[in-house]
Amino acid sequence: MWDPDGVRVACCQIHPRFGELDANRETGARAIEAAVERGARIVILPELASSGYMFRDADEARALAEPDDGPTTQGWVQLARRHGIVIVGGFCEIDADGRLRNSAALVDPEGVRAIYRKAHLWDRESEVFVPGDRPPAVVDTEFGRIAVMVCYDLEFPEWVRLPALAGAQLLAAPANWPAVQVQPGQVAGEVVRVQANACVNRMFVAVCDRTGAERGVDWIGGSVIAGLDGERLIGPPEDGGLAILFADLDLAQADDKHVSERNDVLADRRPELYGPLVAEALLSARDPAG
Amino acid sequence: MWDPDGVRVACCQIHPRFGELDANRETGARAIEAAVERGARIVILPELASSGYMFRDADEARALAEPDDGPTTQGWVQLARRHGIVIVGGFCEIDADGRLRNSAALVDPEGVRAIYRKAHLWDRESEVFVPGDRPPAVVDTEFGRIAVMVCYDLEFPEWVRLPALAGAQLLAAPANWPAVQVQPGQVAGEVVRVQANACVNRMFVAVCDRTGAERGVDWIGGSVIAGLDGERLIGPPEDGGLAILFADLDLAQADDKHVSERNDVLADRRPELYGPLVAEALLSARDPAG
Repeated sequence: MWDPDGVRVACCQIHPRFGELDANRETGARAIEAAVERGARIVILPELASSGYMFRDADEARALAEPDDGPTTQGWVQLARRHGIVIVGGFCEIDADGRLRNSAALVDPEGVRAIYRKAHLWDRESEVFVPGDRPPAVVDTEFGRIAVMVCYDLEFPEWVRLPALAGAQLLAAPANWPAVQVQPGQVAGEVVRVQANACVNRMFVAVCDRTGAERGVDWIGGSVIAGLDGERLIGPPEDGGLAILFADLDLAQADDKHVSERNDVLADRRPELYGPLVAEALLSARDPAG
Repeated sequence: MWDPDGVRVACCQIHPRFGELDANRETGARAIEAAVERGARIVILPELASSGYMFRDADEARALAEPDDGPTTQGWVQLARRHGIVIVGGFCEIDADGRLRNSAALVDPEGVRAIYRKAHLWDRESEVFVPGDRPPAVVDTEFGRIAVMVCYDLEFPEWVRLPALAGAQLLAAPANWPAVQVQPGQVAGEVVRVQANACVNRMFVAVCDRTGAERGVDWIGGSVIAGLDGERLIGPPEDGGLAILFADLDLAQADDKHVSERNDVLADRRPELYGPLVAEALLSARDPAG
């Protein structure tokens, strides 16, 4: 796993406790420090790492929400400054218009560099959150270009394509993957999709899942880091429990999209054929009465 | 693997010999008969099953090409009529304008129901073939709605999405997958991408690869049939050699796109956000001078 040209990426598969904001911030901080001690420069935490996930309703989420410059992201900024690192993690956001968002922040020593709001909501999240409507930001950090999305977003290859087209070298994705049945000798569909996202875009993908039952719901604990050929570089941990996963990634390798002498996974796309979308958009633009 | 509501699908991983049209047609016919004897009703052959793959140049391909109603597809129609089956297989086509195509046919007792022309060409294929520019046809057969694409097409999730949106229940894909290195305990990226294509669309995907070295090139021999959760139902064969893979698929299950009480993998798409494409198309439509 060690790569002399690589930057060490860590996924901290922690166990947030529902509603315990301070304790969860402390758990996250300790995991980040542990990852840094082992050389990590890019550290990823799960989705909704500060609040927990299993909100009964929007009121409960509102009581645990914070603005994009609240104590959770500001705590991460302090850690990023102290250690000269990048942190990506999920938190329950209340935006400037008072709407609840399932968000992830990317912070580095400069401060909060990006807030991403989950655009594809899972199950009862739609009763709590307003979905985002902006594509994943691609942030130029000291270590490379990093994009952020959250959990179910990863199941839409059109969405993952956008940061790849915008030059992302690493996609960092906080997740809370509900437990699923897996066939013997195989991995969960969630992990398969991450691997495919990595190789169809030749972009590294690091997903940080959570662990620990919450209000009767269990999780895959399937954190994984996938390489440019779609291989699992590390993860998921066999027992799905507490873990920090490390991989040394030479992110510049993601700039080369070749898969043969003549093939390039992005240049070989034929977007002019990928409508009906385009066709429909053109039609409605040409015929405003239609 | 047996499903009382299922239709038996077979992938015939055969060994075509370069340039031996008659012998390859015979090999294909024998494999189809063997699959039918074991109950298959949908039978898939590899890419370029009649001609072989390793053309030195376009002239060599031209000498092995045939029209869409040539001896290869007509042989398949005879077998389809005799046994009441669907056959999908690849052949080297010369179209009505004299252009060479890397094509696949879907035939059933009614005749040739669809000709699909590979739209994403691999490596030196671009020196031989003209890429297709039509989306995968979705054919309503006696057994279900079946779509066809070929090999490298599968690496473009936008392309696979089109037949899923058009209602395909099974994607049948002839392939010739060049050999690759695979990490211990993992499967080739080619297989990972097939599994992801299946689950992000909740559409069965059956890929028929070839086996047997040809002009120094070896193949994965990675034929695989993937289920709606992205699991490998069968394949790839461990030794990558001659094999017929069977799976009984209840194709109607693919009509249900739900993955939770509130989530549907197609309805949850947010295509209005998946531009730049759409944005660009709209702009150019609104401003013809632009």
